[in-house]
Amino acid sequence: MDKKQIYKPKPVSGFPEWLPEERLVEQQWLDHIRRVFESYGYTSIETPAAEEIDVLTAKGETDKEIYTLTRLQADEDDKKEARIGLHFDQTVPLARYTAMHFNDLDFPFKRYAMQKVWRGERPQLGRMREFYQCDIDVIHVDHLPLHFDAEMPAVIYEALSGLDIGRIQIGINNRKILKGLLHYLSDENQTLFFRILDKKDKLDKNVFDNQVADFLRNNTENETAYNNANDDLNTLFSYRDQLIRLPLSEQISKLREILIGHSTYENYQEIKQDTTLPKFKTPLPEFYEGLEELVFVLTNLQNLPEGSVVGDFFLIRGLDYYTGTVYETRLLDIPEFTSSVCSGGRYDDLAGSYINKHLPGVGISIGFTRLFDVLKHNGYIKTGRKCPTDVLVVLPSDDERTNANTVAHTLRQNGWNVEVYHAPQKIGKQIAYAEKKGIPYVWFPDSSEVKNLDNGEQAPVDPNTWAKDAS
Amino acid sequence: MDKKQIYKPKPVSGFPEWLPEERLVEQQWLDHIRRVFESYGYTSIETPAAEEIDVLTAKGETDKEIYTLTRLQADEDDKKEARIGLHFDQTVPLARYTAMHFNDLDFPFKRYAMQKVWRGERPQLGRMREFYQCDIDVIHVDHLPLHFDAEMPAVIYEALSGLDIGRIQIGINNRKILKGLLHYLSDENQTLFFRILDKKDKLDKNVFDNQVADFLRNNTENETAYNNANDDLNTLFSYRDQLIRLPLSEQISKLREILIGHSTYENYQEIKQDTTLPKFKTPLPEFYEGLEELVFVLTNLQNLPEGSVVGDFFLIRGLDYYTGTVYETRLLDIPEFTSSVCSGGRYDDLAGSYINKHLPGVGISIGFTRLFDVLKHNGYIKTGRKCPTDVLVVLPSDDERTNANTVAHTLRQNGWNVEVYHAPQKIGKQIAYAEKKGIPYVWFPDSSEVKNLDNGEQAPVDPNTWAKDAS
Repeated sequence: MDKKQIYKPKPVSGFPEWLPEERLVEQQWLDHIRRVFESYGYTSIETPAAEEIDVLTAKGETDKEIYTLTRLQADEDDKKEARIGLHFDQTVPLARYTAMHFNDLDFPFKRYAMQKVWRGERPQLGRMREFYQCDIDVIHVDHLPLHFDAEMPAVIYEALSGLDIGRIQIGINNRKILKGLLHYLSDENQTLFFRILDKKDKLDKNVFDNQVADFLRNNTENETAYNNANDDLNTLFSYRDQLIRLPLSEQISKLREILIGHSTYENYQEIKQDTTLPKFKTPLPEFYEGLEELVFVLTNLQNLPEGSVVGDFFLIRGLDYYTGTVYETRLLDIPEFTSSVCSGGRYDDLAGSYINKHLPGVGISIGFTRLFDVLKHNGYIKTGRKCPTDVLVVLPSDDERTNANTVAHTLRQNGWNVEVYHAPQKIGKQIAYAEKKGIPYVWFPDSSEVKNLDNGEQAPVDPNTWAKDAS
Repeated sequence: MDKKQIYKPKPVSGFPEWLPEERLVEQQWLDHIRRVFESYGYTSIETPAAEEIDVLTAKGETDKEIYTLTRLQADEDDKKEARIGLHFDQTVPLARYTAMHFNDLDFPFKRYAMQKVWRGERPQLGRMREFYQCDIDVIHVDHLPLHFDAEMPAVIYEALSGLDIGRIQIGINNRKILKGLLHYLSDENQTLFFRILDKKDKLDKNVFDNQVADFLRNNTENETAYNNANDDLNTLFSYRDQLIRLPLSEQISKLREILIGHSTYENYQEIKQDTTLPKFKTPLPEFYEGLEELVFVLTNLQNLPEGSVVGDFFLIRGLDYYTGTVYETRLLDIPEFTSSVCSGGRYDDLAGSYINKHLPGVGISIGFTRLFDVLKHNGYIKTGRKCPTDVLVVLPSDDERTNANTVAHTLRQNGWNVEVYHAPQKIGKQIAYAEKKGIPYVWFPDSSEVKNLDNGEQAPVDPNTWAKDAS
């Protein structure tokens, strides 16, 4: 062979790719998630990889690093064209899509999206520059029923529990609960305060408590307001610590207790007359609205296995724009996966930056590639076959070629994935090829026999009736 | 609602997206193509959207317009990193992938890829900046059996004929045939000459004939060489005009005639002794090699429907790097689609730019989005449903919610895609929702009856036994 100029390529940091046997598992996972999404009536949309920079930044500053696109051989014409960049999530494109195609869509619009997104961040394990997200969202005009807030965890539970990644726990909260207690704080300060609350697991308890108290003290009008806010928060969080240890049905009862007497209620005032119940000093009606919504959502999820759903007042999702229900999902049996694998929530106004319509929505997103990557690096992904082939038809001689092709065709029509071996080599070599690639069956066209490579059994089979389901 | 600052987004030229009902058809098409690819044992790989610019340009100048990526908020660190750009096809990434993972792959390596690629070209109907390609390729080390040259058209015929786009015709040629006749020309001049031949359909016959004659005259050593080359070409092309009107089995016989006496041959010399056969004056052995390979490929495709495969010496694919078999595919019933929908061929050396191995391959690529886009714009795509939902479970009242959810769960387990209506509204309104979205069945959980919206029939059904296949 000639000596040639060789450019030895290096992996591009943050842009993962898998070997064929790993990709087969990834495909099974993506197929399963898609099947679950569709089984709840979500419809696929796929948006371009690129959007106008003005669209990507229409909501104001983003903390996501955007990749912009420039033609390598740019010319004068390029300057006249819109500047474009790769999308960094699937929500901004959904908002743009919904605004642009508003008159062609049916509402409530239930859509799923399973695309790659790109962020120019510094890569590390579990944080990549290119990754799949698997999202479902429901958008409606003006008013979106709570039904969908309860549907999200049901879909996600089914999607994730089919991936062989152990026990799933979906934490659910409602932003209105805290907002109804923290009305002393401006909207802006509430957001800042949520960021502090969000760090609870990362900080020492005393440091955390001090940060909370300091923030409240510095941002409430007077001592009374500070005391009320602080007491209400402590009451809520001590209730939370009881809650999360209980079975779901008892969590729901506890939440109802706050709302009502012991079983029914007519209005939020009743609670003040029941001395056995925890007292909140200065909640706004929004607080009880949030509790009611949380009770509705949890009640509709009681058919899921015990422990897979938990109400959690400490679940904040600090930096996001959610206005009601919020979700986070933990993998209880994968200690290496410490953060949320699937998060989301309800937002009031999806596409207000692009259209003069009020479009509330609720959505949830699986950080798919992050999940797959972390599990792969920690040895949780079991790979098997290196190709989708079920049956290798051997080629004893060139004379058998037509016969081999005919059998292969018949087997494919019965649902099998079939290769005909590519040359009339020694049968042992052909079988070795099947073994190496993990192909489970070998077909001998001259004798019409099939050999099961798992157990070594060989028997004559009629190709017309050998159905894949029967194997 | 508040008056807000609204940025009305515009479609980004060359980056197509579809409405949900169109996307459903696109998904069916992509699913079908994937199923066919896998049924022949091709395994999926997915490479990152971005490659190093040095990888994309390693083979020298490319006529494809590359998009480079730059972080919007670029900093000093960026300068230390590799320059990257979006891939413009799936072959360069395959070459890079095969070189990089060489020791982890099994050969022959049969892979399929169905990803988007990007080219910064001026957009027009059927030419986009972002589009799907659906590729299969087989790569082997040192020697790749002809078996795979014959497999490509079989796979593609099955993939395309399942898309309801009318009759398919796959034209097949072998580059060695012309190269074996045109050995008077340097490699470089052969490529230039192929470009002229490639324009046959676009030029007036006299203009074309003159260009051919002029090129040969200017690039052959002497009058004898010119005459021989010109005569041999004319003999070949007049044979071609007979060939393409014949049934495949007769095409094969005609090709064999050139090679042999009338039925068998021992060596290429025999042809010189048969005075009834067309005479080529100065072919190299490569000419007969090409013919033999073409005969092998066509012979193995005789089980496809008559007219779907044709041998065609005029099929050139002028600008590409093929060395043997070449393919093009026409849609006979879609006059608006004038170019090839699916092309490819055999190449000698896939990854020589990245690894010191000799890796011959053969591959073929469906220009998927181009096909879909042209068909859509000409009204050939029939859309139906706007969502994947098969059954809408109505919600007569909030009391029926648990019951409705339970039925929905059961139906999903039986393979149905099911929505529960999102609020206890009037039944008429719920049915109207199903009709608008094209959902075929409505389920009444209070009576356990199902209504078929196509024919209006309504009957009680057991949700446990109502299987999707039986509908």
